[in-house]
Amino acid sequence: MIAQMTKKRTMKMIAGMLLLGIVFFTTSTQTYAAAEPDEDYLALVETYGETFDFFTTSTLWTLIAAALVFLMHLGFATLEAGLTRAKNTTNILFKNVFIICMGLFAYAAYGFNAMYPGDFNGIFALGSAITTEAYGNTDFSYGGTALCMTGWADFIFQAMFAATAATIVSGAVAERIKLPSFMVVATILVAFVYPITGSWQWGGGWLSEGGFYDFAGSSLVHAFGGFAALGVVMVLGPRAGKYQADGSIKPILGHSMPLATIGVFLLFLGWFGFNGGSVLSANPEGVSLVFVTTALAAASGGLATMFTAWMVFKKPDLSMSLNGMLAGLVGITAGADSMGPWSAVIVGAIAGVIVVFSVIFFDKIKIDDPVGAISVHGICGIWGTLAVAFFGGGDFMWQLYGTLSISALAFVAGFVISLLVKFTMGIRVSEEEEATGLDIGEHGQEAYPDFSPNSH
Amino acid sequence: MIAQMTKKRTMKMIAGMLLLGIVFFTTSTQTYAAAEPDEDYLALVETYGETFDFFTTSTLWTLIAAALVFLMHLGFATLEAGLTRAKNTTNILFKNVFIICMGLFAYAAYGFNAMYPGDFNGIFALGSAITTEAYGNTDFSYGGTALCMTGWADFIFQAMFAATAATIVSGAVAERIKLPSFMVVATILVAFVYPITGSWQWGGGWLSEGGFYDFAGSSLVHAFGGFAALGVVMVLGPRAGKYQADGSIKPILGHSMPLATIGVFLLFLGWFGFNGGSVLSANPEGVSLVFVTTALAAASGGLATMFTAWMVFKKPDLSMSLNGMLAGLVGITAGADSMGPWSAVIVGAIAGVIVVFSVIFFDKIKIDDPVGAISVHGICGIWGTLAVAFFGGGDFMWQLYGTLSISALAFVAGFVISLLVKFTMGIRVSEEEEATGLDIGEHGQEAYPDFSPNSH
Amino acid sequence: MIAQMTKKRTMKMIAGMLLLGIVFFTTSTQTYAAAEPDEDYLALVETYGETFDFFTTSTLWTLIAAALVFLMHLGFATLEAGLTRAKNTTNILFKNVFIICMGLFAYAAYGFNAMYPGDFNGIFALGSAITTEAYGNTDFSYGGTALCMTGWADFIFQAMFAATAATIVSGAVAERIKLPSFMVVATILVAFVYPITGSWQWGGGWLSEGGFYDFAGSSLVHAFGGFAALGVVMVLGPRAGKYQADGSIKPILGHSMPLATIGVFLLFLGWFGFNGGSVLSANPEGVSLVFVTTALAAASGGLATMFTAWMVFKKPDLSMSLNGMLAGLVGITAGADSMGPWSAVIVGAIAGVIVVFSVIFFDKIKIDDPVGAISVHGICGIWGTLAVAFFGGGDFMWQLYGTLSISALAFVAGFVISLLVKFTMGIRVSEEEEATGLDIGEHGQEAYPDFSPNSH
Repeated sequence: MIAQMTKKRTMKMIAGMLLLGIVFFTTSTQTYAAAEPDEDYLALVETYGETFDFFTTSTLWTLIAAALVFLMHLGFATLEAGLTRAKNTTNILFKNVFIICMGLFAYAAYGFNAMYPGDFNGIFALGSAITTEAYGNTDFSYGGTALCMTGWADFIFQAMFAATAATIVSGAVAERIKLPSFMVVATILVAFVYPITGSWQWGGGWLSEGGFYDFAGSSLVHAFGGFAALGVVMVLGPRAGKYQADGSIKPILGHSMPLATIGVFLLFLGWFGFNGGSVLSANPEGVSLVFVTTALAAASGGLATMFTAWMVFKKPDLSMSLNGMLAGLVGITAGADSMGPWSAVIVGAIAGVIVVFSVIFFDKIKIDDPVGAISVHGICGIWGTLAVAFFGGGDFMWQLYGTLSISALAFVAGFVISLLVKFTMGIRVSEEEEATGLDIGEHGQEAYPDFSPNSH
Repeated sequence: MIAQMTKKRTMKMIAGMLLLGIVFFTTSTQTYAAAEPDEDYLALVETYGETFDFFTTSTLWTLIAAALVFLMHLGFATLEAGLTRAKNTTNILFKNVFIICMGLFAYAAYGFNAMYPGDFNGIFALGSAITTEAYGNTDFSYGGTALCMTGWADFIFQAMFAATAATIVSGAVAERIKLPSFMVVATILVAFVYPITGSWQWGGGWLSEGGFYDFAGSSLVHAFGGFAALGVVMVLGPRAGKYQADGSIKPILGHSMPLATIGVFLLFLGWFGFNGGSVLSANPEGVSLVFVTTALAAASGGLATMFTAWMVFKKPDLSMSLNGMLAGLVGITAGADSMGPWSAVIVGAIAGVIVVFSVIFFDKIKIDDPVGAISVHGICGIWGTLAVAFFGGGDFMWQLYGTLSISALAFVAGFVISLLVKFTMGIRVSEEEEATGLDIGEHGQEAYPDFSPNSH
Repeated sequence: MIAQMTKKRTMKMIAGMLLLGIVFFTTSTQTYAAAEPDEDYLALVETYGETFDFFTTSTLWTLIAAALVFLMHLGFATLEAGLTRAKNTTNILFKNVFIICMGLFAYAAYGFNAMYPGDFNGIFALGSAITTEAYGNTDFSYGGTALCMTGWADFIFQAMFAATAATIVSGAVAERIKLPSFMVVATILVAFVYPITGSWQWGGGWLSEGGFYDFAGSSLVHAFGGFAALGVVMVLGPRAGKYQADGSIKPILGHSMPLATIGVFLLFLGWFGFNGGSVLSANPEGVSLVFVTTALAAASGGLATMFTAWMVFKKPDLSMSLNGMLAGLVGITAGADSMGPWSAVIVGAIAGVIVVFSVIFFDKIKIDDPVGAISVHGICGIWGTLAVAFFGGGDFMWQLYGTLSISALAFVAGFVISLLVKFTMGIRVSEEEEATGLDIGEHGQEAYPDFSPNSH
């Protein structure tokens, strides 16, 4: 029957196609009138000087890197959704949609100028909204070859970074936090706290004036997010049933390993923009070295975790191996520009081993982190920052000061803000809602409402 | 048992790995013989003039932008699949595979030269197949710095655009249109209709000679797609059971919010190429401003929809919020290059509010659009075009003429073509097939044939 | 109830937001102190000569292309997962995570220098680990405009290629190969065998000195992977129940067409880097032509398969059409730079027809290839290589020698290595494990452990 039906259709289809085909090939080619680019171009060169071509390529790379970092938000969304239960998926996706929207908005409205205040006391500066005047690209020598891009490109690249801090938190607090409470915590963290620690180093504050080095943010982004998450989780508490009265730990499995895998591959891809774009110009020497160290650290991190977990759990563990690639990436982020490929392999491999035991450790002390964000971003962020002292010529004490002070502020901020939220709006969903799932409880919307495989 | 087994395996595994390791490190480094690029390069410069470097970067950016717009087709495919029922998923994916293949082919065979005919009457020109001669990149001053790329780069970028028009339609007609009928409608729209309205503005036709402005296609691509969809939907009718006899509206939920979310994030990413590439050169001033306005409009669109829907539906609605980001993106598309960041925020936010009420409105008047494509692309496309008059210095009347004439032609074309198809091949699947699902009816192939979670 | 709850929350939410809003707009703009890029830049130009800008853009493009090829690994992972059963999904994802990690590591530790040994006997050279000295980017004239990039960029681009060879294999052997055995086979293929055939052509070996031409690897990458897969599959045997005693063939369907579709679109996207990056510079003439031929071959491949399969199977087959796009891409890879758009359309279309009958053929001779990798990459890889003789001015006999010798070595290697592995570690899982699924058997980890749609 179906065959019959479709055969008839096919005939009609083909007939139509052939008809179109005939029209397609009325080939009356025509060529293009060539303009005079030389004049236009020479005018540009005259206006902007000889740096114009390099400036153009550098700005373009920064923008492409910003787009890659944007994609990391989809990576986080799918990774977190995959590693949690189907009944909380809509909630997780919603949080990630909110974070990227709020993050970009808040950074434009306040954060960027708080993080890069120009001359300031080195510890704290008030922010302000970006303005067309200040970033209007009239100044093509913005930052020189060390920061070779328009003000707009600088802003959008940094804005994509800012939102990642909150995204890291969203994974750790998944499956039990009240949506509005999370939205408030995340907004305060991204808008007001992240720019403070950011200004300490990238804004020219006290850490940069000391001797701290954090190329692309093992501490400023990842440890910040990881320890802010720890602070929130300590206020929030573990998911119901995770830690049994008898002291046993009940594994709460995610609902889709393909989603989780898609997430980690997208994060790996985005990291080429995260680290590569942090060169802040298209300097071929810098960008290409960073691509190599970043990729090799991810690879060795993945392999190290794969075999470590195999030894420890007696089986090849996919979700742990995925976290291993991320651990390697977080680990290399602070020194991706300042070490050779084999140092990067070692840094990534050590991060890959650390993450396995860190995940086990936090479970032992009853810190419930559904996706392992505290271990991957927090602990490996600290390791990566210290590794710069061992492999990248950084000063150990300053690396230690820096990563600890950033992590400490993030932790305290996460903890205090969560406490305030807990006592005002409340921070945790009801037991019933947690059992039913936040998709129904918070959104009245399931993630797979019409999913009925093997049936119709 | 498993532990036992895998342990043995692991030992073998490690042994093998170590063995390989030994071989790996036979480090007999060798270096590279340096060539003489200066000569090769100077020859190029001599041939192509001083613009060569800028031309190279601009062409590269256009090609990368084309790749990003290509990815939007995966975005549409996953968004449409996610927001519809599992029993129609194979059909939706198949349509999107067809559209990108057909779209590229048709645009090469006819559309590109119909849309960019050079001198023509300003209203209509016949197309023709692209030829190696005409685009053979022998002319490195093609278009000057205002259109700074090879003919090939120009073609592939525009070709990726063309197919999106049909993709927009495919979402609105999902779950009830006959496959071959859709294929014919989509092909005619992309190959013959889209280039007509395109030529009015981007091909140098009557709209561009008037005073219409549509930077990257709020009207020429999105309103076109949205209103063509409206035309087809009016002929096709709503899905069975959507509008009950008693006047009540039955919500027909999709089957995968993760798929829908992946789709929207990919569309957001692709939009950096869609808008950024429309600068038609790597001009750092233009491209970087466009990245900022595009991202901020998407963010404010998402936030505005989030809170508007929360007010209206009394819950935070994920699928609506996803459409809100798209609404902001469609809204900024016409003026992304001609306004500052805060104007972009306002344009996006208004689009985000509009889309909520537009979706409600079309449901009220019984226009069944499973993914909200008519509201997101059609209505917000018109808004974005008019917004150029308020925020980007465009002439209001011309913006109005332009968007209405483009939308009108798209609507009429969609309506008439569908009618003709309806009376020849038929346009709607049988009631039985609609109930069973188009995956079985049209393809004899389920989307999740072996999907049996929690079982083996 | 929920409405009540969320309404209260919403109020609080809005209040908080407004509060933040106020702080946001303390607009104390400040501008940037302009640096003196001209001096920095002129220093660079002085150091590196006039090629610096072109070199920068070319290096950047190579790195972006490497990132795109990286994404192909996610494409392979999702395609393979989608076309196989849910019970083997974790295993497939794990294999793909291993392959990219191992592939990058092995290529850095041995492969790259074995494939590009400089002067060698033309047939075989020992490899070695890359070193900071050799690729330290001190030589900005590396390779000239024909290979215009840093050593690092060259390495990472080629490394992403190398791993794809093993990924192709992983699809064909899915659902029955022992994990550790696959890991050993894949590692040997990527680390030691792939560089041998690679050196024959791209390393300046005997094939390149003859007259063989393979632009981006129809033979060196795809036919290699396809025929290595054939060799392994012949040792491994078909999946249980695939070929019935009565001679009938039982179709074993995959579990997620959306995953498969995501995979193919990502592969299509990645191919712009795979082929476009193989220009080995940002030469606008070359890169833009390659983008056009690549896209059009994929489109015509998809269309040709669509209609061929429709004729043969009497229904529009999605999974076959997806393979059709890949067939077109594999087909154009050898000559993407050396033919015009309509030749590319023909090459792609023929590949699209070939793949349908090839898949049927291998099923007839009981070669069980769950994803059709042998047909798509192996057979179409040979076709694409020969097509260069017909459409790209290559020498037919040399194209034949080349593709056959590469395919033959890959087949023999795959066959022999698998045999050795079979008699040492064993290569196939037990019947029980195959029935239960490799996710439980190898990993003790399901892919959808908590997936319970339509229920809570």
